[in-house]
Amino acid sequence: MPEARHFHEELAELKNKLLVMSSLVEASIQKSIQALEERSPTLAREVFDDDKVIDQMEIEIDECGIRLMALDQPVAVDLRMLFGVLRINNDLERIGDHSVNIAERALRLAEAPFLKQLVDIPRMAAIVQSMVKDVLDGFVQEDPEKARATCKRDDEVDELDDRFIRALLTYMMEKPSVITQAMDLIIISKNLERIGDLATNIAEDVVFIYQAKTIKHHIDKKED
Amino acid sequence: MPEARHFHEELAELKNKLLVMSSLVEASIQKSIQALEERSPTLAREVFDDDKVIDQMEIEIDECGIRLMALDQPVAVDLRMLFGVLRINNDLERIGDHSVNIAERALRLAEAPFLKQLVDIPRMAAIVQSMVKDVLDGFVQEDPEKARATCKRDDEVDELDDRFIRALLTYMMEKPSVITQAMDLIIISKNLERIGDLATNIAEDVVFIYQAKTIKHHIDKKED
Repeated sequence: MPEARHFHEELAELKNKLLVMSSLVEASIQKSIQALEERSPTLAREVFDDDKVIDQMEIEIDECGIRLMALDQPVAVDLRMLFGVLRINNDLERIGDHSVNIAERALRLAEAPFLKQLVDIPRMAAIVQSMVKDVLDGFVQEDPEKARATCKRDDEVDELDDRFIRALLTYMMEKPSVITQAMDLIIISKNLERIGDLATNIAEDVVFIYQAKTIKHHIDKKED
Repeated sequence: MPEARHFHEELAELKNKLLVMSSLVEASIQKSIQALEERSPTLAREVFDDDKVIDQMEIEIDECGIRLMALDQPVAVDLRMLFGVLRINNDLERIGDHSVNIAERALRLAEAPFLKQLVDIPRMAAIVQSMVKDVLDGFVQEDPEKARATCKRDDEVDELDDRFIRALLTYMMEKPSVITQAMDLIIISKNLERIGDLATNIAEDVVFIYQAKTIKHHIDKKED
């Protein structure tokens, strides 16, 4: 059995680290979209730098969590929490990578003529940002229903992504000279769509932590 | 301490399940590319069906692993193995999702005029398939070096993907009527590139399991 005080202190610290990590990741999405909107290479490069910090934090949280698991051998709810924290950690790091992908395209687009279709991106970005924020709030507030509600908004993101790409394809056919920039916008849209998927993964982790249920792949199955 | 016989039997069974899962995932990549090459909607639909089985296996392996972790409270090398198996499990499931994405595009392309650029896809697919196979072999043969060698081939995949997309962009500009199909090929290429990334993640897990090292983000750091 875990030595209660020690273990729970360490776990609380680990959760705090995860929240710092999630603020960094949320900021990285925000900054990558701002780099795109403001055509700012400086902001885009900040996203690359911030991602190094995010990567380092992921390793730290991973190592802490694995050490805690090995030393304190938690069971039941504590084990689920620890396990869930490590999964959320991995998903947050992947979201950071998508911000980097977006910033890379923003950097290229800052040099190219402005494409009006860009205005649809911030709307999609706002939804995925709120999804990431809400699943983390659900985690902090021990409110799995709040996290679960996020999954529904993922359908909206998928639909926006589909519509955006279809519109851009039509535009590319009419005006082949914009193909390169349009492709960059499509890749950005796809990255936002992936962030939505990862927010959904995190929601599943939050439900797993607090309700001991697996809701992956829409199979609502009791865990233990 | 884990009750040795029981725990190691269960762990062996879990590893076997993971190998079955990896065969299914390898087959799903293969089948999605074959669906593309042979313009076969039937094969594409098989990929969708197979993915349901893969999703179900992921849940089973996850549940088994978490239960084993809770009941037997393994430490050190056993804990690392169990933890590593669960990570590989998640990554394999994600690879399965990419096969589905490829099959979806293959289904659409089967209805559209043939695009000669398609011939570059199987080459890239062959590399990522061998990457997935080799990391799993590295896992089975307890050979982290074999798994680690895989990471290098990921650079080749990234380069092929870049070159392929650049060539297609040029082609789209010359011939806007093919934009929709060309875009499908680009999305397929991107999905293969992501499979390469996930194979690299698995390689990192194999190194973690057998060498207790974190090699993520190219930081070569001893774990304990």
